[in-house]
Amino acid sequence: MTAEEIRTLIIETVSENGGHLASSLGAVEIAMALRAEFDPFKDRIVWDVGHQAYAWKILTGRKDGFASLRKLGGISGFPNPAESKADAAVAGHAGVSISVAEGLAAARDLRGGDEHVVAVIGDASISNGTAFEALNNCMTACRKVIVVLNDNEMSISRPIGALSRHLGRLIAGRKYNRLKEAVKAFCTKTRLGFMIGAARRVKGFFKKMLIGNAYFDQFGLRYMGPVDGHDVEAMRAALKVAKEEDRSVLLHVVTKKGKGYAPAESDPTAWHGVGAFGKKEAKGAGEGKSWSNVFGEALCELAEGDRRIVALTAAMQDGTGLRDFAARFPERFRDVGISEGHLVAYAAGMAAGGLRPVVAIYSTFLQRAVDQIIHDVAISNLPVVFCVDRAGAVGADGATHQGLYDIALLRAIPGMTICEARDAEDLKALLKEAIDRNGPTAIRYPRGNAVERKKSGNRNALEGKIAIWATGDMMDKAEEVAAKTDGVAVHARYIKPFDSELLARQRAAGMKIVSIENASVIGGLGEAIGADMRFGWPDGFLEHGSVAGLEKKYALDAESIAEAIRHGA
Amino acid sequence: MTAEEIRTLIIETVSENGGHLASSLGAVEIAMALRAEFDPFKDRIVWDVGHQAYAWKILTGRKDGFASLRKLGGISGFPNPAESKADAAVAGHAGVSISVAEGLAAARDLRGGDEHVVAVIGDASISNGTAFEALNNCMTACRKVIVVLNDNEMSISRPIGALSRHLGRLIAGRKYNRLKEAVKAFCTKTRLGFMIGAARRVKGFFKKMLIGNAYFDQFGLRYMGPVDGHDVEAMRAALKVAKEEDRSVLLHVVTKKGKGYAPAESDPTAWHGVGAFGKKEAKGAGEGKSWSNVFGEALCELAEGDRRIVALTAAMQDGTGLRDFAARFPERFRDVGISEGHLVAYAAGMAAGGLRPVVAIYSTFLQRAVDQIIHDVAISNLPVVFCVDRAGAVGADGATHQGLYDIALLRAIPGMTICEARDAEDLKALLKEAIDRNGPTAIRYPRGNAVERKKSGNRNALEGKIAIWATGDMMDKAEEVAAKTDGVAVHARYIKPFDSELLARQRAAGMKIVSIENASVIGGLGEAIGADMRFGWPDGFLEHGSVAGLEKKYALDAESIAEAIRHGA
Repeated sequence: MTAEEIRTLIIETVSENGGHLASSLGAVEIAMALRAEFDPFKDRIVWDVGHQAYAWKILTGRKDGFASLRKLGGISGFPNPAESKADAAVAGHAGVSISVAEGLAAARDLRGGDEHVVAVIGDASISNGTAFEALNNCMTACRKVIVVLNDNEMSISRPIGALSRHLGRLIAGRKYNRLKEAVKAFCTKTRLGFMIGAARRVKGFFKKMLIGNAYFDQFGLRYMGPVDGHDVEAMRAALKVAKEEDRSVLLHVVTKKGKGYAPAESDPTAWHGVGAFGKKEAKGAGEGKSWSNVFGEALCELAEGDRRIVALTAAMQDGTGLRDFAARFPERFRDVGISEGHLVAYAAGMAAGGLRPVVAIYSTFLQRAVDQIIHDVAISNLPVVFCVDRAGAVGADGATHQGLYDIALLRAIPGMTICEARDAEDLKALLKEAIDRNGPTAIRYPRGNAVERKKSGNRNALEGKIAIWATGDMMDKAEEVAAKTDGVAVHARYIKPFDSELLARQRAAGMKIVSIENASVIGGLGEAIGADMRFGWPDGFLEHGSVAGLEKKYALDAESIAEAIRHGA
Repeated sequence: MTAEEIRTLIIETVSENGGHLASSLGAVEIAMALRAEFDPFKDRIVWDVGHQAYAWKILTGRKDGFASLRKLGGISGFPNPAESKADAAVAGHAGVSISVAEGLAAARDLRGGDEHVVAVIGDASISNGTAFEALNNCMTACRKVIVVLNDNEMSISRPIGALSRHLGRLIAGRKYNRLKEAVKAFCTKTRLGFMIGAARRVKGFFKKMLIGNAYFDQFGLRYMGPVDGHDVEAMRAALKVAKEEDRSVLLHVVTKKGKGYAPAESDPTAWHGVGAFGKKEAKGAGEGKSWSNVFGEALCELAEGDRRIVALTAAMQDGTGLRDFAARFPERFRDVGISEGHLVAYAAGMAAGGLRPVVAIYSTFLQRAVDQIIHDVAISNLPVVFCVDRAGAVGADGATHQGLYDIALLRAIPGMTICEARDAEDLKALLKEAIDRNGPTAIRYPRGNAVERKKSGNRNALEGKIAIWATGDMMDKAEEVAAKTDGVAVHARYIKPFDSELLARQRAAGMKIVSIENASVIGGLGEAIGADMRFGWPDGFLEHGSVAGLEKKYALDAESIAEAIRHGA
């Protein structure tokens, strides 16, 4: 397939199914070059944050099924070894590909194998702490890996941190542009002619200007590049050299996010992850008011009146609804890049200094800062507010992105308050309560649009035979179920501490206790309250697909729950 | 107090109470210089892995109480703001001090304050990914922090990774030694005369040789040093310059671990953390056979017959009992330094490559790799074995080091098997079972010495009115309790999946179910089995003190548990 054919297939599919467009379009030629130079079923190609790997999927036997991308039972939006042997590792979270590649290479070395191991990592991901740890260990971890740095000069929003500036300087600096011409002239006479930039052989000449090399040199990797990441032949030539090298190599390729689709090229942030858009209209994702935006608006309102409030994100300014906050309160906003560990420890310091940091983070990425939450925030009982977005089933992104474990992870942490909003108004109220609390709070809310203020059923919480405790927006389902089962729905607004007094009264009244939560049933509300029947996501990784479809499959729709209660199963 | 007086007090106290000796002795003059140049109650000094901060405690009002170090109700072995305002942050885990300091500095900047914020971090800690993330964000995180790099040329065992090599090259290289003389001559004529090494002003001359500077330069910090970390006046002079600087500074000081106590100077690893030793005998800690050593021996045995087995640690080779393994199977052993995130992702790659990686890690540090356990190991159901050492209450190290949360963190992860050994023989058997399993396993065992094979009571698990389920070495307590209450003790060898069939039969027989676990009562075995009475550590951070003393205080000794059961409380 040509690059154009691949791009057409990606754009058509994403326009129907939604998905990660800009980064996938940017990495088409990288996938082609890797496919041409390596054996996808023997060599191991580890894609970091695999949403850039659509072209790889298409080129390794999944062209025909590609129309099912991100649908229940269809092709996953991320690499998955269970789907194809060409996917060397699960890859939905950023920054781990070099570590995984080093592990695969170490196994090869012990076995005496000869396959190549390649990590493909973006410039934002390589600034993650785990990627640094992997680079720092590279010389002893294995004999050799090839790291392809896909440098598109922006992470999901914009490049963060000193390392990005280095790479930027290397590529965009005026010195570099002048240098480029000189190097080109030099390279045409050598076997390095495929390079735009300068590698080891020209280091003597240009080292002073190419200071970016020093970063990778210090870890013992041979730096090669930068190479044009949309020139398949140039990359193939570079990869041929990399394959022959007897130590680890970092090949720096420069790409353009959204390449080949004008709207995505001009606004790659809006086109990072998108819903189905229909090719012709070409409009961005998210029209209604999402939970994220409800949160962002509420925080702006509170911040007007409370100068202690600061907002923090790890490379998810737009995803978490903080775009307006960042514009209105730039001095009180920080995007730390894909650095969740630092994010939380930094917030702890701010809180100790008298501020009220609000950390907006997806549930799935909160997993990366559990230790900082315990060690830096909770032991000192610091007032950090965690706004846990995408909590619950996330749908098409699938197993790597499910927000199902935050309750279990947080509930054992002493002093941690956990709550979940029932609707938009409730989220605002919970946020206010959290900021006024002298201790850490996590507020969960799911992906998608927030519901408007709902009136709860009028039944008294002690009426009926069955008390159906539900978290957040599961209340809608709980009320449906209550109507079908002569039960009463109870909003478990606070999950920790929960309303133990009400529970005791219901127990004393002989009511059956049922729980419904948008979380793993292990470690969640149901266990906390000792519910007699517990409805939540079962003990297994939840695949991709629409949330409604998954609820049906796992009997978590209102009808199935009511049925189960009636049968006492 | 003189440095000698401080050292004498530290050595005397640690010889009685146990504690962290080598690093504390190494940092005495750093604490003196900081105390002299800063106001400990206004300026904020953040000690990374605060076990180096004993001298700081002594110098900031805790000299008189210092004899109570690490005892129940006494001075904590780590900095704690609840103990003194001179402790800016809780600090038991490595690598977060720069993040916390940046947060404190950001709060200062927004408030318009003028206090100084200082992070004191070791050369091993600064190679942690979170520390990298903090450096990478330093230029935008705040106006200024001062980072004091306490470079003792070794982490707990030995320096790991490329960054350590750089620092080593900077200090120990022959070039540096020649340079030192040249710089000294140069510096005597300038206000930089206090430095051993070269800072910005001499950069032009010596940059080529002092390549270590480049690492910190790239993050926008002004590099100063190296300075002799046992010369208070030299450090004070350097700190004076650092205070005047208008951007962030990294002051590189070189110290000797164990300084001033000959046995610790000559073998700082053995003298890192020690039990009470009595000054005169001066013998190392740990004589009997610890759980760690039982594990290490068992792993060596298995590794003889199974070439797939590799052992991994994050800077805890000796602590986790892997010293012999490392010596016997060097090519199958990796110490990745304080890089827990990388550790687990690296292990995942190894497992995907056909090996059977065994990750030996303390429970408290496992918290740092939760996301890698979920994302890189569990989703792909990879056979990584986590040997979770120091699981449960750890005693004198206190709140930052308690191993109370691993069950709660791991139990919600699909496909994760969790087990706990009853005695030394059982640990060997569980290890064998784990290595044979096609999926991830966590084996918990506590701090201290393993018990020899115990015979369980002969009662049938369905006899009596009360079934007392207990994990691991809590079985001893459970049998005591059973004898006092007409109950039967049940070894919950597997916590996930637990023996649900036995539980159902006991329930059917009308037995009361009780759980006893050495873990947080929230999220643990008791919740998993829905025990009627649950005994474990309560929902609050557990302070330092002897485990026996803490058990008494929290009514977790056998007598208190039996009493509670008899009263049905």
